[in-house]
Amino acid sequence: MADAKFLTFEGLDGSGKSTHLRRAAEWLRARGDEVLVTHEPGGTPLGNAIRGLFLDARWGRMDGKVEALLVFASRRQHLLELVEPTLDSGVHVLCDRFTDSSLAYQGGGRGLGADWILELDGLATCGRRPDATLLFDLQPEAAMQRGQKNDRKGGDGPDRLDVEGLSFYRAVRDTYLDLVAAEPGRFRVVDSEGEREETWRQVEVVLEDLFR
Amino acid sequence: MADAKFLTFEGLDGSGKSTHLRRAAEWLRARGDEVLVTHEPGGTPLGNAIRGLFLDARWGRMDGKVEALLVFASRRQHLLELVEPTLDSGVHVLCDRFTDSSLAYQGGGRGLGADWILELDGLATCGRRPDATLLFDLQPEAAMQRGQKNDRKGGDGPDRLDVEGLSFYRAVRDTYLDLVAAEPGRFRVVDSEGEREETWRQVEVVLEDLFR
Repeated sequence: MADAKFLTFEGLDGSGKSTHLRRAAEWLRARGDEVLVTHEPGGTPLGNAIRGLFLDARWGRMDGKVEALLVFASRRQHLLELVEPTLDSGVHVLCDRFTDSSLAYQGGGRGLGADWILELDGLATCGRRPDATLLFDLQPEAAMQRGQKNDRKGGDGPDRLDVEGLSFYRAVRDTYLDLVAAEPGRFRVVDSEGEREETWRQVEVVLEDLFR
Repeated sequence: MADAKFLTFEGLDGSGKSTHLRRAAEWLRARGDEVLVTHEPGGTPLGNAIRGLFLDARWGRMDGKVEALLVFASRRQHLLELVEPTLDSGVHVLCDRFTDSSLAYQGGGRGLGADWILELDGLATCGRRPDATLLFDLQPEAAMQRGQKNDRKGGDGPDRLDVEGLSFYRAVRDTYLDLVAAEPGRFRVVDSEGEREETWRQVEVVLEDLFR
């Protein structure tokens, strides 16, 4: 019970984090552990409604601070309603994006800076951090190419964040790497430039280390 | 152009603030001024979508901090998209509820305290305050009776905030009166225990003073 872990999966869209999160959950279930798979923004009925606002292209270019306020409302609800009770019951939580995404996307990409986000994080979550964070790192150019390939397969067309340019994604990636430098003990960097199986082998090494 | 004023109307539901706000707008238009009438939470397409989340009974008892984060997201969007540009164009803005509502309802009613709300307000709006605020004051018992009378006329049934008890509304009213004591220069207290015309005569005196 006491060793339920809260793991977060971070990186650019197209970095493979969501695919490997699902596979990590299967890996944990295969060894007999209970796992909750969830995501942000969203993860609760209210959170999913907020996520809908956040991604809706109708509002045009939403102010970065409005975006962050919505994400932290969703995050607080998610922690209170789902994440903390699940961990308390002895079940691992694997979460696709968490506060590091706010620091990277709104703090870095939109240029709000770390201080503003960290102050909001203190108000909304008391600075809650996961036990470990897997960062799926690749060049923004490669992430955008993979994203475009996914778009050609169909889907609903680009959402509001897809229309950002390369400089935005470079700032996001640079901020992620700054976070790793500031908290090397929490982050595990996975190089996701290569083929899916190469990336998975790195994830497996991280999991074996975290859950040995 | 330079003397466009930002006025807010505060008080418990049932205090008559919304009715007198519309009449105050007519009073200003009759003297040839341009006026925008708006409300919070809401006032913009995104804000109205957030208001929908905020009042939706499906989420059950929403955590007070989640509620405040949503309201301040709506408030920031409202200020940026509508209130400030309107004032800049020389048009008065009359707004039904603003930050004092967050202080009274979430800070006082839900017991989050003033400090937490004021820190969030600093992040979201840089502590923006209106030029003047009319507080429609009456006993919570009277406000609740008027509210029940309105419900019997029909409508969609009680929203999530209608189901709060008397002690909640007492804390809200007490907090409003504390705010008046702290900023007597900004607040104008209107006694709304009496008949509508008695209340309106007080509003008219306030307007004549503010716009002479």
